[in-house]
Formats: sequence, C-alpha cells, structure tokens
Amino acid sequence: MTMAKRDTYTPDSLLSVAVEVFNERGYDGTSMEHLSRAAGISKSSIYHHVRSKEELLHRAISRALDGLFGVLQEPGARTGRAIERLEYVARREAEVLMEELPYVTLLLRVRGNTDTERWAMERRRDFDGEVTELLKQAAADGDLRADVDVRLATRLLFGMINSIVEWYRPGRGGSANSEEVAEAVVRTAFAGLRT
Amino acid sequence: MTMAKRDTYTPDSLLSVAVEVFNERGYDGTSMEHLSRAAGISKSSIYHHVRSKEELLHRAISRALDGLFGVLQEPGARTGRAIERLEYVARREAEVLMEELPYVTLLLRVRGNTDTERWAMERRRDFDGEVTELLKQAAADGDLRADVDVRLATRLLFGMINSIVEWYRPGRGGSANSEEVAEAVVRTAFAGLRT
Repeated sequence: MTMAKRDTYTPDSLLSVAVEVFNERGYDGTSMEHLSRAAGISKSSIYHHVRSKEELLHRAISRALDGLFGVLQEPGARTGRAIERLEYVARREAEVLMEELPYVTLLLRVRGNTDTERWAMERRRDFDGEVTELLKQAAADGDLRADVDVRLATRLLFGMINSIVEWYRPGRGGSANSEEVAEAVVRTAFAGLRT
Repeated sequence: MTMAKRDTYTPDSLLSVAVEVFNERGYDGTSMEHLSRAAGISKSSIYHHVRSKEELLHRAISRALDGLFGVLQEPGARTGRAIERLEYVARREAEVLMEELPYVTLLLRVRGNTDTERWAMERRRDFDGEVTELLKQAAADGDLRADVDVRLATRLLFGMINSIVEWYRPGRGGSANSEEVAEAVVRTAFAGLRT
C-alpha cells in the first residue's frame, strides 16, 4: 500500500486525473478505487469533491460540449456567407478538439449506458443538426457541391475532424502543431487534396 | 439455464458471433463464458473450433487485414498515375470497410494489450506506410496539393474513411448505400466540398 498524498486537488485538477483514467480504462471499466489510486488520495477525499463517478463524467462531458458549442456562438460562426461560417466552424472545432483533447476524446467514446452518456449523445446529435443546417444553407447558396448529400457531408467532415483524437498528441516532436492540423483539415475538406 | 443448442457452427459462423461480442463488450471485457452464451453452445464446443479467445481475435483481425491489404494488390492500385491509384485505393478501402464492417471495426479498436493486438497495430502502420508512399508519389507528380504534409494528408484521408464505422449500418432505411458513401468519400477528400 502506498502512502496517500494530502488532498490538494481542486475540482479541475481532480477532473483532469479522472478523465485520464476514463480514457485509459473506459468509463464502465473505471471504479472509484481506480480513481483513488490514480489520484493518490482516499475514496472519501474524492467524495469530498464529487458525489459520484457519474458526476465526474458529467463535468468532463460538459467541458467538451461547452467548448464545441461555444464555437457556434462565435462571431465567425454567426455572420457572413454560410460556406465561410462553415469553414470557420470546421477550423475552430478542430482547434477546440486539440485544446480539450482528453475531454473531447471521452465525449466521442461514450456509448449510452447511463443518463449522462445518453444526454451526451443527444447533445452530439443537436450539434450535428446545427452543423447540417449550415451545410444546407451553403448548398442553397450554391457554394457546396451538389452531388454529395449534406447529411453525409456533415458526417465525413466531422469524421475527419474527430479522427484527430486517434493520433494527435500535443508537443510530440516531429508532428504538426494544432494550427497546422486545423489548417490541413480545412484545406482538405473544402478544397480537396487534388491540385 | 437455457438449453445449449447443438453445435452446428462452422469456423466462419462462430467467428461472426465472436466478433459481434468483441465489438459490443470490448475484447478485454469478453470472456469465453460470454462467447459461449452468445453462441448458445458450451465452452468445450467452442474449444473444439479454436484454442483460445485470442485465436478468434487473430482470425477476425486477419480477415480485416486481408481485405484492406488485398486492395493494394488490385490492378487499379498498381497501374497508372499515382493520384488515380490513390483515388482507387480510397474508394475500395471505404467499400471493403463497409463490406467487412464488424471485422474492420474490431481492427480499428484494438489497443495493444496482447501479441495479436500489437501485431494488428504493426500491420496498420505498414498499411499507412504503403499509402503514404502513394501520396508522396502523387505529390512528386504535382497532382497533390503542396501545402498539406503527406503524412498528415494520409491521416486525414483515412480518418475520414475509418469514421464510417461509427455510423454506417448496412440496409438501414434512409441512409446511403455503400457505393454512394464511397463515392462521397472520394469526392470530398480529393475535390473538396466547396464548389
């Protein structure tokens, strides 16, 4: 048994440890015992901060969703031609995903076994709906290619963006930085790889 | 206790049941007991077909890899200008992914806890390497945009293709069929969404 360290956690720093464990073991596979060991504090110290494991999940998912939905409220997402707003949203969502990498990774992996997970999936559908509206508007403006269905285009665009969680690790030598990755996403998705 | 059904499985049909359970529960979270219950035959009947759970994983992963690597041997992937071969490979990989959906889904989710999983990840890296070479050749031909790094472009292209496993369900009413999806992938990735 290792000596438990004194509980100097803030809600944010405890959340950060929990999210790391959730992503490593899966939310279902994580017990309060695992969290206690990873944080190096007792379970009762954790219960001083949160009521349950699900509360930690809820906070983590909220942080990811606040970031992703926040983009839709930014001026660049609300003013101007739909295609420009769409490109702005794609770039910013890619940036938020990389800034909030562990939180967005967790959001993308939830499966719907608890109320919190079902709520997360509903919010993701709301998000997809808002982006699909933007694609519809861009298509109506004649700025989007007409031979790809907008629902499918939304899925492929966000499939590309979301796949960044599989390999992006900040600060890893030799790999692109987040601005370069976001820029590459926008160029690839909107203008295509082919010259 | 339910009556076990008579073992009429072939290696392929047993594999199909196992892959479904692996994708549902995760490979680590699946026991021989789970497989026995899902197949409706005893554990000893399963051991009549395979030596271990890992052998089932190995067979399933092999099936996915054979499909994906098989594309690289097709004439369309081996003759002609690199950009054309690359488009051919992207389209066919998307098609194979949808044809072999549960097997490729399993391949994309393995994490590296067993020898088989580590071998799968190594084969995925080999695959990425072969595709990256194709992108390099297309870039050297001047057919690929020069302002996106080829390694990053490979990741984004396959990020888009692989994300299909998250939502594609064959025969689900209202959704696109596999040819439409593969066509949309190629159009989006190579020519871009913007008109």
